Amino acid sequence: MPARIYNFSPGPATLPQEVLAQAARDIVNFQDKGIGLIELSHRSKEFMAVAQETEDLLRELMNIPDNYKVLFLQGGASSQFAMIPMNLLRQGRTATYLNTGTWSKKAVKEAKLFGDVDLAFDSSSTTFDCVPQDNNFHSADGSEYLYFVSNNTIYGTQFRNFPETGTNLICDMSSDILSRELDVSQFALIFAGAQKNMGPAGCAVVIIRDDLLAGCPDSVPTMFRYQTHADKGSMFNTPPCFAIYAIGLVLKWLRDQGGVAAIAELNCKKAALIYDMIDSTEFYRGHAQVSSRSTMNITFNLPSPELEAKFTGEATEQGLDGLKGHRSIGGIRASIYNAFPYEGVEKLVNFMKDFEKQNS
Amino acid sequence: MPARIYNFSPGPATLPQEVLAQAARDIVNFQDKGIGLIELSHRSKEFMAVAQETEDLLRELMNIPDNYKVLFLQGGASSQFAMIPMNLLRQGRTATYLNTGTWSKKAVKEAKLFGDVDLAFDSSSTTFDCVPQDNNFHSADGSEYLYFVSNNTIYGTQFRNFPETGTNLICDMSSDILSRELDVSQFALIFAGAQKNMGPAGCAVVIIRDDLLAGCPDSVPTMFRYQTHADKGSMFNTPPCFAIYAIGLVLKWLRDQGGVAAIAELNCKKAALIYDMIDSTEFYRGHAQVSSRSTMNITFNLPSPELEAKFTGEATEQGLDGLKGHRSIGGIRASIYNAFPYEGVEKLVNFMKDFEKQNS
Repeated sequence: MPARIYNFSPGPATLPQEVLAQAARDIVNFQDKGIGLIELSHRSKEFMAVAQETEDLLRELMNIPDNYKVLFLQGGASSQFAMIPMNLLRQGRTATYLNTGTWSKKAVKEAKLFGDVDLAFDSSSTTFDCVPQDNNFHSADGSEYLYFVSNNTIYGTQFRNFPETGTNLICDMSSDILSRELDVSQFALIFAGAQKNMGPAGCAVVIIRDDLLAGCPDSVPTMFRYQTHADKGSMFNTPPCFAIYAIGLVLKWLRDQGGVAAIAELNCKKAALIYDMIDSTEFYRGHAQVSSRSTMNITFNLPSPELEAKFTGEATEQGLDGLKGHRSIGGIRASIYNAFPYEGVEKLVNFMKDFEKQNS
Repeated sequence: MPARIYNFSPGPATLPQEVLAQAARDIVNFQDKGIGLIELSHRSKEFMAVAQETEDLLRELMNIPDNYKVLFLQGGASSQFAMIPMNLLRQGRTATYLNTGTWSKKAVKEAKLFGDVDLAFDSSSTTFDCVPQDNNFHSADGSEYLYFVSNNTIYGTQFRNFPETGTNLICDMSSDILSRELDVSQFALIFAGAQKNMGPAGCAVVIIRDDLLAGCPDSVPTMFRYQTHADKGSMFNTPPCFAIYAIGLVLKWLRDQGGVAAIAELNCKKAALIYDMIDSTEFYRGHAQVSSRSTMNITFNLPSPELEAKFTGEATEQGLDGLKGHRSIGGIRASIYNAFPYEGVEKLVNFMKDFEKQNS
């Protein structure tokens, strides 16, 4: 194994080393069959088995009920912003959105092309430093669905508890899927881009309750209908084979770590290390309100932009990479998804202590 | 290097061994930076350089004029069937389609959701055994564009010369892009799924003349507008990083082979070897009319379905894999894209000779 940096990138993000090593072998010669993984026909029995295993593992790890379909789609989470209202928001009807950051804002924009949007919560005035607590929002009667983003990568906020609603609950779980236990049956649809907690870029996973498939209007193109992909086990057209394969490897790794419950415990420990450091000093200031803090993306500021630039520069030199915050809030962001190692978090906290000593 | 089978799969298809070996190294440790290729942020300078190099190579190899944008999109060629009329077919207007097989038929279906379709050519009555010759079709006046598929993977037909038209020419070049020289400026839009001649599954390349970008109706979702991706250099959202990287490797390999002109010559030699064999006997019967024969996918039948099953079975045992024809015409299909080695074609022809001797 080569010397590794600690990669705090918000996505594409760090992956388990075992996954990378296995992928490297299979790309050249898959299961000693004299053919590389990415050369396999998607209709070959070898690749069909890979895809099936990936789906089975996700079902097992998330305990997905049988009346939910699991789809592996292309187009990223961003295409889901449009596919959701195309499939589920009938013309002249309303959908409720909770606006907690950049990604929900983009989803609202697409929904407005297809129906009315009821913005039941909006934390834009405080630079998205919080998410709703204890259902402190009111959604419109007769709304087709309630849409929210469980974890906000850019702002470092996360729903501790999911919204309760009498309508279909739809969640963009791109940056915290598989990071903690949850009850899938609470949701009508969960989707997530793979490139944070599940694998490489190039695949979005959609988990959809099967009664929602049939309602799509005839005007929606074939490829943008969930039904199309559900009917063909995500093989209506050539799927993103490598990404599906790599997601499977990550899920196997996750199962070997003890599954979602075990990784959730570790995620809390990792996040607590950094938040405790932030709370122990005035030098570092967390961006998110305490009750909305994310375990996946930890955002904080230093006394000045100059110190922040110095911080990321020196961190990179020490092998702590990708810590620069998103331009919309500046500062520092440590993305510590499932595969980010505990030792890397310890190293960051030690660096934070040293940096404070030398610069305060 | 492991022992390799000869992989005649129609796509995903065989790739150069050097490409697989390089990808295996970079996946674990990209350029010795202590980070795997698929862990790199798409906004990192390392990945931005990869994406730029891929685009530059494609521009160089295809001699793409400056007034064309090159986009790397998700959703496969199948999503293009819808995106093209969504972006380019105004309501109440007509587009002309040449129906030469399964893929054009699917494209016609999507176009009808957005406007009128003028079917100027249709070879379905002869099981798609030919494509138009010398422009022997008549397209409707005032058509927004003329759409065709340059090579039909399933039926083994290919346009020797491209249609001449007074309107915008749009081509699905999924299965023969980069296989022969052409003048991009003849086309308004060329698209191709990567998984035949360019790389792994998970990316579609779109080459679009830039004056076509602005006309998209406001009702089209952000992700399905060409303008969105053109404005952001295919980085509006997280792109399919691994596929873009691997396409770059394949393009470098192609440049090292002498570029498109050199590979075109080799492709003709490879195809001629098999067609000469077919034409030398009554035992093998080519599906495509001689004037419509493809250099990429060679389709033929044996005297009976039983012999065809025996043929593919024995071929597989000898390391000649993926020769079973598509269920719509049965028989045999040899897909011999750019990366398929000449020796593999020789081996197939020798096998065909032996098989005929033993079974006629």
